[in-house]
Amino acid sequence: MTDLTPPPSTFEARLRQIGVERYHDRHPFHKMLHGGQCSIDQVRAWVVNRWYYQSRIPMKDAAFLSRVEDPALRRSWRSRIEDHDGTDSQPGGIARWLKLAEAVGLDPDYVAAGRGVLPATRFAVDAYVHYVRERPLLQAVASSLTELFAPKIHAERITGLLEHYNFATPETLAYFRHRLTEAPKDVAFGLSWVIDHARTAEEQDAASAALTFKTEVLWAQLDALYHAYVAPGHIPPGGWQPGEGLL
Amino acid sequence: MTDLTPPPSTFEARLRQIGVERYHDRHPFHKMLHGGQCSIDQVRAWVVNRWYYQSRIPMKDAAFLSRVEDPALRRSWRSRIEDHDGTDSQPGGIARWLKLAEAVGLDPDYVAAGRGVLPATRFAVDAYVHYVRERPLLQAVASSLTELFAPKIHAERITGLLEHYNFATPETLAYFRHRLTEAPKDVAFGLSWVIDHARTAEEQDAASAALTFKTEVLWAQLDALYHAYVAPGHIPPGGWQPGEGLL
Repeated sequence: MTDLTPPPSTFEARLRQIGVERYHDRHPFHKMLHGGQCSIDQVRAWVVNRWYYQSRIPMKDAAFLSRVEDPALRRSWRSRIEDHDGTDSQPGGIARWLKLAEAVGLDPDYVAAGRGVLPATRFAVDAYVHYVRERPLLQAVASSLTELFAPKIHAERITGLLEHYNFATPETLAYFRHRLTEAPKDVAFGLSWVIDHARTAEEQDAASAALTFKTEVLWAQLDALYHAYVAPGHIPPGGWQPGEGLL
Repeated sequence: MTDLTPPPSTFEARLRQIGVERYHDRHPFHKMLHGGQCSIDQVRAWVVNRWYYQSRIPMKDAAFLSRVEDPALRRSWRSRIEDHDGTDSQPGGIARWLKLAEAVGLDPDYVAAGRGVLPATRFAVDAYVHYVRERPLLQAVASSLTELFAPKIHAERITGLLEHYNFATPETLAYFRHRLTEAPKDVAFGLSWVIDHARTAEEQDAASAALTFKTEVLWAQLDALYHAYVAPGHIPPGGWQPGEGLL
């Protein structure tokens, strides 16, 4: 590390500031959802689209694993795939998401087939998978650090949804409860890895840009939902239409 | 071709119907732009974002060339790169687009650096580049067939912009005038190639899906502009702000 490289504490503060300014807890759709102002159809649209994101996370993590030469790093990272896809003894995040889909009245088979997902959601999420597949490992790991900011949003979701919506129960919100313990474990590892491996000012810049990119991936998904289902409510061709895919 | 494969005329009609139903001339932003209802800042936002699309088209075409083994097909396709990037004797589409940027009061260096492009625009356009890089050649060619529908939109643009906006002159709209002759030449080749190479019902389905995908790429760009700059006017973090990048 050269004298010109900002120290780890400054770098970590820079990463955290990106969350303060750009994480999607600042998005109007998030505030509507947690404040109980979403109609059931707006909640359903969120569940349909957010499924696509969940479904691509283990593919993103597999793309990452496929590029890592160090068995220790692969071993540390592998649990992320298990957390989403499940094991013999527990169902995993995607199955928990489909429980939420059922609870809001959606046919889980419709959701799991990826039907009705907004094209803009696919473009944003696929951009994330491509990013992790193509960029230097430092940026691939840094792009996962939105998990630094996730526990707060998951806790807000659990409280807000339980308070405002009949479909919300501890069982139907199990996805978020599990993420409350999984995300901090993952991000503690990811953050220290990024801090250890961003050894120059340029590498700190690249890692910060990767985290900014990831906040854009999340933000763009809520923008697309807002445009299609809140205001002006222009659902693009191919997007989920209220009434479709119900149980 | 098996007996169950729809004949070329039916297949071509199916492709054209995708344009009737999904091409972005049906988008409200397009109607605003050509009807003279866009503010100068909304026009600028469109110019900033659409630049990103123009700038990636020759990269998309290069990705395509890089996968083609047949020299004759490469030779036919290569003019697309020249049309956008220019030659010793003519400037090319990207340079013409930057003339339009100047005419609407934007600093062409700001635009050419890709600053202010909406993340959702990048995600949609990059999805197109990745698609052409990764999918079977039939789908890569079929995804270019939105040019079937482009002459109509370019002609509407020229007429509508000249009628409604002071910045519009034959010089500043040269980009669209050139596309009026370039696009039909390209698409005549692309359409006959796709019809010749989609020899089964499954291949016709795949080619149709590719064209649908491409209409989604175009539509999502106008959705993102509408959300950020028309209604509700929520510019996402990193997006162009009115006043930025002016001459």
